[in-house]
Amino acid sequence: MSSETKALEELYDSHAKAIEQGYFDFLRFKSISTEREFAPEVRKCADWVEGFLKDAGLQTEQWETTGHPVVFAESRHDSQKPTVLIYNHYDVQPVDPLELWKSDPFEPTVRDGEVYARGAVDNKGQCWYVLNAVKLLMARDGELPVNVKLLIEGEEEASSDGLSRILSEKSCRLQANHLLIVDLSLNHIDKPAVTLGIRGIAIMTMKLRGSKVDLHSGGHGGIAYNPNRAMSEMLASLYDSTGRVAVDGFYDDIAELSESEKSKIDFTFDQQMYSDTFGAEPTGGEHAFSPTERCWLRPTVEINGIRGGYTGDGFKTVIPAEAIAKISCRLAPGQDPKRAAKLVAEHLRKRVPSGIQAEIEIHEGSGAAVVTSPDTPVVQAAAQAFGELAGKPCSFIMQGGSIPIVTELAKASGAEVVLLGYGLPGDLVHAPNEHFGLDRLRKGFVTIARILQLLGR
Amino acid sequence: MSSETKALEELYDSHAKAIEQGYFDFLRFKSISTEREFAPEVRKCADWVEGFLKDAGLQTEQWETTGHPVVFAESRHDSQKPTVLIYNHYDVQPVDPLELWKSDPFEPTVRDGEVYARGAVDNKGQCWYVLNAVKLLMARDGELPVNVKLLIEGEEEASSDGLSRILSEKSCRLQANHLLIVDLSLNHIDKPAVTLGIRGIAIMTMKLRGSKVDLHSGGHGGIAYNPNRAMSEMLASLYDSTGRVAVDGFYDDIAELSESEKSKIDFTFDQQMYSDTFGAEPTGGEHAFSPTERCWLRPTVEINGIRGGYTGDGFKTVIPAEAIAKISCRLAPGQDPKRAAKLVAEHLRKRVPSGIQAEIEIHEGSGAAVVTSPDTPVVQAAAQAFGELAGKPCSFIMQGGSIPIVTELAKASGAEVVLLGYGLPGDLVHAPNEHFGLDRLRKGFVTIARILQLLGR
Repeated sequence: MSSETKALEELYDSHAKAIEQGYFDFLRFKSISTEREFAPEVRKCADWVEGFLKDAGLQTEQWETTGHPVVFAESRHDSQKPTVLIYNHYDVQPVDPLELWKSDPFEPTVRDGEVYARGAVDNKGQCWYVLNAVKLLMARDGELPVNVKLLIEGEEEASSDGLSRILSEKSCRLQANHLLIVDLSLNHIDKPAVTLGIRGIAIMTMKLRGSKVDLHSGGHGGIAYNPNRAMSEMLASLYDSTGRVAVDGFYDDIAELSESEKSKIDFTFDQQMYSDTFGAEPTGGEHAFSPTERCWLRPTVEINGIRGGYTGDGFKTVIPAEAIAKISCRLAPGQDPKRAAKLVAEHLRKRVPSGIQAEIEIHEGSGAAVVTSPDTPVVQAAAQAFGELAGKPCSFIMQGGSIPIVTELAKASGAEVVLLGYGLPGDLVHAPNEHFGLDRLRKGFVTIARILQLLGR
Repeated sequence: MSSETKALEELYDSHAKAIEQGYFDFLRFKSISTEREFAPEVRKCADWVEGFLKDAGLQTEQWETTGHPVVFAESRHDSQKPTVLIYNHYDVQPVDPLELWKSDPFEPTVRDGEVYARGAVDNKGQCWYVLNAVKLLMARDGELPVNVKLLIEGEEEASSDGLSRILSEKSCRLQANHLLIVDLSLNHIDKPAVTLGIRGIAIMTMKLRGSKVDLHSGGHGGIAYNPNRAMSEMLASLYDSTGRVAVDGFYDDIAELSESEKSKIDFTFDQQMYSDTFGAEPTGGEHAFSPTERCWLRPTVEINGIRGGYTGDGFKTVIPAEAIAKISCRLAPGQDPKRAAKLVAEHLRKRVPSGIQAEIEIHEGSGAAVVTSPDTPVVQAAAQAFGELAGKPCSFIMQGGSIPIVTELAKASGAEVVLLGYGLPGDLVHAPNEHFGLDRLRKGFVTIARILQLLGR
């Protein structure tokens, strides 16, 4: 371990209590961006984050958007230094099903060194170590080794639409040499890794209507076309028996990675760990590819939600008036999100049975896949920082998730991108009992501070 | 119109106000049998019904079951008279989606002569004219023209399981010559009709599980098999492209009606009326049959409910841990409900994809289809009563709904069955804004009283 890394650990440890206290305060905000009723709470959270950064000595502001505000902060500019833009988000996913949480999702609870709360990892935990690394490094050294710009948005979980709309207008403010996206994971805490790519995303909602009102399935079964049946038939048609997406043209634009590019990436998949952690078998997706390839390099169509008719206690023999499905595509490098969504929607529209009306809405918030080179200075600095802290070489991985804003943000800032973070596969991101380790809060702090040092050399 | 019918109308009119008042009181009980929390209210309703019949001068009792109580009442037995058993139920369907009701489902509201409330027609309205016909006929004449037994159960909407279990034990008490099932409809208020058949039913719930917890669709899409996808694929496989149920052996046991039997039944289908009333097109079911045949004589499989993942506001990119579907079969004459359900369940079990666990539960409350002859005295009496009141010949129809208890009840009572009632297709039975006309309450009263007179001659 370098002496700098050791000093950064000591810096964390001397402030650990305050950092943890602030982390818990941050987690208590119900900053759920996708549900309108929480909008006031989202704004309170933005104010709180801005206040923290102002107290840390940064120049801060909030950018209004069509949705929730973006918190922007920067250190005093020194033209001799490179500029590092760091992206995080302060909003979180909804919490339902609430009954599956073992403790209140907005009252952080520590069990075995893990903090349980909505947003514990995604992205408040990862945001929090960034903010503290910037603050304490500046406090300790009187200045930062680089110019830092922090962009902390409030609707990543709601597709970043608001930020997306103001990016070109704010382009001058965002100019940077390096862009850190701190919203990623490792495959294992003992395997330091930097992420070279994430998938793109496109999302849509399909509503099917068969009648004005719910119908009695006795008096209408065999006459009316059941929207639940239409929904099942239409959605089932999206897949073939080999797990491929059966939508014409869906795979046409994929930019396959070269063998040389692939050779730098660690595609290890630990099936035992996977099954133990999630209780799931890796049987989804295209049979022709390995699980890791399917998740990192291949697109999918997922039915995130489906609902129609009565599913409560007992039984209600209805043919429902309507059924609804929420569908998302994860996209491979090369695929245009708008085109992919349109192909899926067209496929579905062609299969609406007679007697059913379909309404398919493609939502804002799509984003292309990102693939970055392992050879840029920012990726190299990140790999070195991870490697130094872990005391072993850092590998390169990819991830199946999406951060739709990354491509646009890289373009608007003119910066080279690195994707990183200290999430782990078992963190239950987006699910009940999301959690993040206090040890990882510390590692994240050290890693970020060290990257800033390395980029400032 | 016969003078007897006219006198019965006058009997109703002289008590109309009290009858309507009692009807509204009956409707105010939240006697939802399928939801456990309403059990105390169901029992209160049973007590109220029993109290009414006791006051009317009948001998009453309540039969406890594994579910909700059955109200039983009988007139003083005269061995010179035939015995008529009349079946109704005092329980109702759930009310959700509540937001679609224009007025409180448990506060009856009259608009244009129609009473809006849950149970307005099914079955409280139809029960109420029966109870009043018996009461007022007895009060007017000092005695009834026949021995009357009333069986009013409390879980018809919950599959009549409790009553079913005590039928053989109560068989002696239920002995009768004629059995009136008063829970049916006409196709049009100006078309008097008696029902010669209803379909059978079998119900089941299917749960699919893919993982221990909801998974992030980025990190797992392409690896884990999405239960919503499995659900769609499995349910879609239940139908072929001609609308037939694609389950091996499903149609094997159907007892087709002879041409002579069919010739007595009015199969008219008014497509314009159907579309205007329900906003639905008759595109469901088997293409090879007419809409009315499909509904009355052909079996179906309907997906009454389906749910998995997030379908609320905004978007949640999950692969849900589980998905659920509620499925019912309507059955044609000849089909054994247990066998039909087993065939469907086996079909589904064979199609569970690797990586998904399925749990399929076939519920109690199945019942076979009923077909009755137009030539029995009870059917003839009913047809005459309907015809006299309407001033035109009564036709014979069938219906697609199910009253699972009918076959067993006919067997337990040794009686010949007639199926009748004053429901109408637009009554929104089982749906928001269920309603029943006060004019029909009167017609039902007269018809029932007249049938009792005719059977007593």
